Amino acid sequence: MKMYGNWRSAAAFRVRIALKLKQIPYEETFIDLDAGDQHRPAFRAINPQGAVPALFDGDGPPLTQSLAILDYLEETKGGVRLLPEDPRARARARSLAQVVACDTHPLYVPRVRTYLMEAYGLPKERMMDFVRHSFTTGLETLEKRLGGEPGTGRFCQGDQISHADLCLVSLWVGTKIFAVPTEPYPTVARIAEACLALPAVAEAHPLRQPGAPQG
Amino acid sequence: MKMYGNWRSAAAFRVRIALKLKQIPYEETFIDLDAGDQHRPAFRAINPQGAVPALFDGDGPPLTQSLAILDYLEETKGGVRLLPEDPRARARARSLAQVVACDTHPLYVPRVRTYLMEAYGLPKERMMDFVRHSFTTGLETLEKRLGGEPGTGRFCQGDQISHADLCLVSLWVGTKIFAVPTEPYPTVARIAEACLALPAVAEAHPLRQPGAPQG
Repeated sequence: MKMYGNWRSAAAFRVRIALKLKQIPYEETFIDLDAGDQHRPAFRAINPQGAVPALFDGDGPPLTQSLAILDYLEETKGGVRLLPEDPRARARARSLAQVVACDTHPLYVPRVRTYLMEAYGLPKERMMDFVRHSFTTGLETLEKRLGGEPGTGRFCQGDQISHADLCLVSLWVGTKIFAVPTEPYPTVARIAEACLALPAVAEAHPLRQPGAPQG
Repeated sequence: MKMYGNWRSAAAFRVRIALKLKQIPYEETFIDLDAGDQHRPAFRAINPQGAVPALFDGDGPPLTQSLAILDYLEETKGGVRLLPEDPRARARARSLAQVVACDTHPLYVPRVRTYLMEAYGLPKERMMDFVRHSFTTGLETLEKRLGGEPGTGRFCQGDQISHADLCLVSLWVGTKIFAVPTEPYPTVARIAEACLALPAVAEAHPLRQPGAPQG
């Protein structure tokens, strides 16, 4: 497979983990989001939205949107299962994934950060209040649910890693990049550490990808 | 089934359409978002995130997050299929759904609108610039993709209604509520009208629910 991604992208990180866990060979082309490569015609022809990741599986059209890609990989490829069999457990794993991928991550992507600074004239540090608020709201929801719902195990849903964990760890890594305090979220922290202890997750880590800052 | 929703909620609208298309009997309890009922302990016990919809299927725990609920209904209930069989077509339908449910709708929910006004002291009309920008960005992506990709038919993916259309029409109805211009999006408009022509969609329409403004 061929993936267009970016070292920092939380959405590309989720897909990269799934590809590695399922042992699917892939090559990743890095789109330089800071240089605006996502807006150039060459990439807009791949994804008119100008967002990573985009994944090619053979000759078909590009697959886009990280959760849609994760479901596609789940439905078409073998290897480790990343959604539980039981429909209610699947629904819970997906719901937790969407707390991150719908209600948290889209609020702090570059497009939104740029808009807030340009349209409202906010200096970067004031704009970052919104980023941290978005992270904190998502982390609070995850902590309450994971700490209070009986479905939680070693991972978000029971003892097997699922889409929920791929999303959770992508948010967790973002707290380091954006300097978001994490002390109030011990259950989220425990599960993130369980994910990061897996070689596939560690290898997929943003800071281990080309283009990432060194040291 | 028992659903907690709100007349204005785009996410509740999506689930309401699916329940009606699949002819699943349900009762809806309206949570008054303007009065802050989503923050009260009684509702937080149902969904710690304080978001609608929440759906009860029998005695199980509440199902939350609209896309996770749609997948659950698809996997466990009969009736009209709302995702195509072919994995690539499914992935495209899901990707289009997520353009709305991940990258557009979460940016203009009450929580975000309130934050922008309170934290940045923006008057309502200035805050609304962000709301309209979010709608416009989502609509532009949908128009480019639906107008340019061969998978588009009478509906977003071929000639059968799918999760993509449920999300699209939920965004479309929002353009009326938030006074967002829609002239530049003829393909989106065509598909939204095709959806609204279905009795199940018309009956699920926000303005036909209890609590909605009259006339």
